[in-house]
Amino acid sequence: MTAHSYHAELAWLDSPAENVLIEVEGERLVRVTEGAEAPPDAVRLPGITVPGLANAHSHAFHRALRGRTQAGSGDFWAWRERMYEVAGRLDPDSYFALARAVYAEMAVAGVTAVGEFHYLHHAADGRAYADPNAMGHALVAAAREAGIRITLLDCCYLAGGLGGEPLSGVQLRYGDGDPAGWADRVALLADGDGVRIGAAIHSVRAVPPEAVEAVAGWARARGTPLHFHLSEQQQENEACLRATGLTPAALLHGRGALGADATAVHATHLSDADVELLGASGTLACLCPTTERDLADGVGPASRLVAAGSRLCLGSDSHSVIDLFEEARAVELDQRLATGLRGHHRPEDLLQAATGCGMASLGWDAGRLVPGALADFTTVSLRSVRTAGSRPQDAAAQVVFAATAADVTHVVVGGRPVAADGRHLALGDVGELLRKALAGLE
Amino acid sequence: MTAHSYHAELAWLDSPAENVLIEVEGERLVRVTEGAEAPPDAVRLPGITVPGLANAHSHAFHRALRGRTQAGSGDFWAWRERMYEVAGRLDPDSYFALARAVYAEMAVAGVTAVGEFHYLHHAADGRAYADPNAMGHALVAAAREAGIRITLLDCCYLAGGLGGEPLSGVQLRYGDGDPAGWADRVALLADGDGVRIGAAIHSVRAVPPEAVEAVAGWARARGTPLHFHLSEQQQENEACLRATGLTPAALLHGRGALGADATAVHATHLSDADVELLGASGTLACLCPTTERDLADGVGPASRLVAAGSRLCLGSDSHSVIDLFEEARAVELDQRLATGLRGHHRPEDLLQAATGCGMASLGWDAGRLVPGALADFTTVSLRSVRTAGSRPQDAAAQVVFAATAADVTHVVVGGRPVAADGRHLALGDVGELLRKALAGLE
Repeated sequence: MTAHSYHAELAWLDSPAENVLIEVEGERLVRVTEGAEAPPDAVRLPGITVPGLANAHSHAFHRALRGRTQAGSGDFWAWRERMYEVAGRLDPDSYFALARAVYAEMAVAGVTAVGEFHYLHHAADGRAYADPNAMGHALVAAAREAGIRITLLDCCYLAGGLGGEPLSGVQLRYGDGDPAGWADRVALLADGDGVRIGAAIHSVRAVPPEAVEAVAGWARARGTPLHFHLSEQQQENEACLRATGLTPAALLHGRGALGADATAVHATHLSDADVELLGASGTLACLCPTTERDLADGVGPASRLVAAGSRLCLGSDSHSVIDLFEEARAVELDQRLATGLRGHHRPEDLLQAATGCGMASLGWDAGRLVPGALADFTTVSLRSVRTAGSRPQDAAAQVVFAATAADVTHVVVGGRPVAADGRHLALGDVGELLRKALAGLE
Repeated sequence: MTAHSYHAELAWLDSPAENVLIEVEGERLVRVTEGAEAPPDAVRLPGITVPGLANAHSHAFHRALRGRTQAGSGDFWAWRERMYEVAGRLDPDSYFALARAVYAEMAVAGVTAVGEFHYLHHAADGRAYADPNAMGHALVAAAREAGIRITLLDCCYLAGGLGGEPLSGVQLRYGDGDPAGWADRVALLADGDGVRIGAAIHSVRAVPPEAVEAVAGWARARGTPLHFHLSEQQQENEACLRATGLTPAALLHGRGALGADATAVHATHLSDADVELLGASGTLACLCPTTERDLADGVGPASRLVAAGSRLCLGSDSHSVIDLFEEARAVELDQRLATGLRGHHRPEDLLQAATGCGMASLGWDAGRLVPGALADFTTVSLRSVRTAGSRPQDAAAQVVFAATAADVTHVVVGGRPVAADGRHLALGDVGELLRKALAGLE
């Protein structure tokens, strides 16, 4: 078991601490000491070191849309058509190459764990690959090469709409026929070093009520994370009310999907009763503000969810931007636009959303710099043009409101250095990796 | 007169062009040739080269608040109290040091011209400095050392409110007594190489109607840009209606302040009639979306202003962020949040707001890569993790929606290289410059 140590100029130990000696054995922290001298062999970490960032909601292949669809007009549903075109072109090899580059972009942005909401399961005509999890295995291999943890949120996707419409076109790639078909395939996936298999319900649009119950039960029986898209668009709410007489949140509640091990992604258009259901059940809310801006989803009730009892976590979702600091500040800033008031979320709470709460949502024992936790941490320069002039007592606000992904210097995952001085140690030029992977899709 | 040339892999000539030879004599462009070979002595510009960015609304000293007030609660007026504290601490030397660092941050972010909305004129008790323009001269010297153009929008600030309340506290530093006192002081300022003196009316709160007329007349007589804050907050509108029976836009219109040489900053809370007044007069609207998010101002009627005939330009204002690409995309993204629809502004129009329209607002013959124009341009890498995978035909969308200030590599102002490979050529480590300047204010 390797043992080594890092010395942080400043570290976030639920409050800012100076001269922090971080001692690692194997993949875990063994000692975290404030006000300590740096041993000669310690790796110096100038700037502020925070727990590893958790990107709790990712669709890796959407990175291929960056700069190509942002100019688009129309609504969410028009954008979805363009997204489906890319989904139709991927195979296990091209998906691996793209996901490896996207996860490497996350790694150099300080992300140490990703939640991949994965529904692109089968070949173009819906037939299973020889390995029915060929696409899932490509994502797992991609995360491993990028050096970050992955929670593969394997997504059940059965119907083309709330009327139980059959899947059509690209959607055929998503389907497993019925919940048993989904469970049989997912049973062939296994947890591993830096890999957790979780469950996902795509949405009430794509998963009938009985199937919601089956997938939620499957996740509970295995004690694994459960994620679902919730009320990203008003149209989904209206269709759900027409078809079932329930809001999506109420339907999921009635079928046992809510709970402290569950994460509702977006949670944008909620009734007061919906907010109470999520809060009372301790369901996490994963906000994806840069995507919600891009797709014109709207501003969700973030502070009402917190008041009701939900913890917030963050995801870059469609990857129009991969910057968890931008996601964190956007939660507060978009609430300001919606209300005309400041101060809905404390910077330390937004930092907690980007770290500890995200790790909880993904089922990782990480997100705090305490002995026994997984040794995942990220160092942010406080000497860049963006962060220069920060004061220790303002460190949380500085990082959340001033830093960008470009200010991340060192990234350690499970005690293993993944990035140093902003460079990916194993993969090198991540921009070039992205360029090649995207060129392969043209 | 020095002559030299640059060869851009891709350049924005109102549309994307490949292999563009940019030839410069003195401070101006003499030839811009698409599809050209690179002469051996040409400076290579990999990535996309766009006209120099114009930061049309700046309060340089607000940079001292970054990461210190973003965590704040309350409203705009509570934030203003904290801003006043910093304003109270500055003198010509510390203001020079801070502004030089802030303008250098702008330079490496691709900004080649700044519009400094300057009202911090006098000593702490309101007494004039020996040089009554000591503070304005500090700003001009700061921009010169940072290598960017400055339009010093010298601001008339006479009253503490719409009731004609006297100035108090820090506001004493802003005042010139009456419009003649303001004009006498401003008459001592002179245009110069890279320097233009413009006029500003702080707001209808701080400048009585007759003084609005006087300052507008002064600017018109000299053919120099005129800027004013307009309806950033509903409270200003309500107070103006109570005091004068007019909206701020109607008051400014009635006093001759609107016009194609005038720029309304923020223009957030406008009636339909206000929008018509601005559009019909060709008044530019300077949006500052990252500040308007931070200060909870709200989302202005950007697309209605364009439809009415106003051109948009952009400013980083309070400098919670200095990134004109973030400002540009925020115009569109915040409209999406407000409307639930995408596609309000084409990326090429947002790029025009950040370049040509901003230069027009500041009175510079720049903002397009055409022979005869000032040789201001900025190169953005298309190989970073953020911009990798871009296609020439998507260049405008790529830059506006994917790039950040950290992707700026080369910056040329008036034919003079200011930054190369992201580094400020004259000033070196801009982060360190900022750190020292901000430490000096503690």
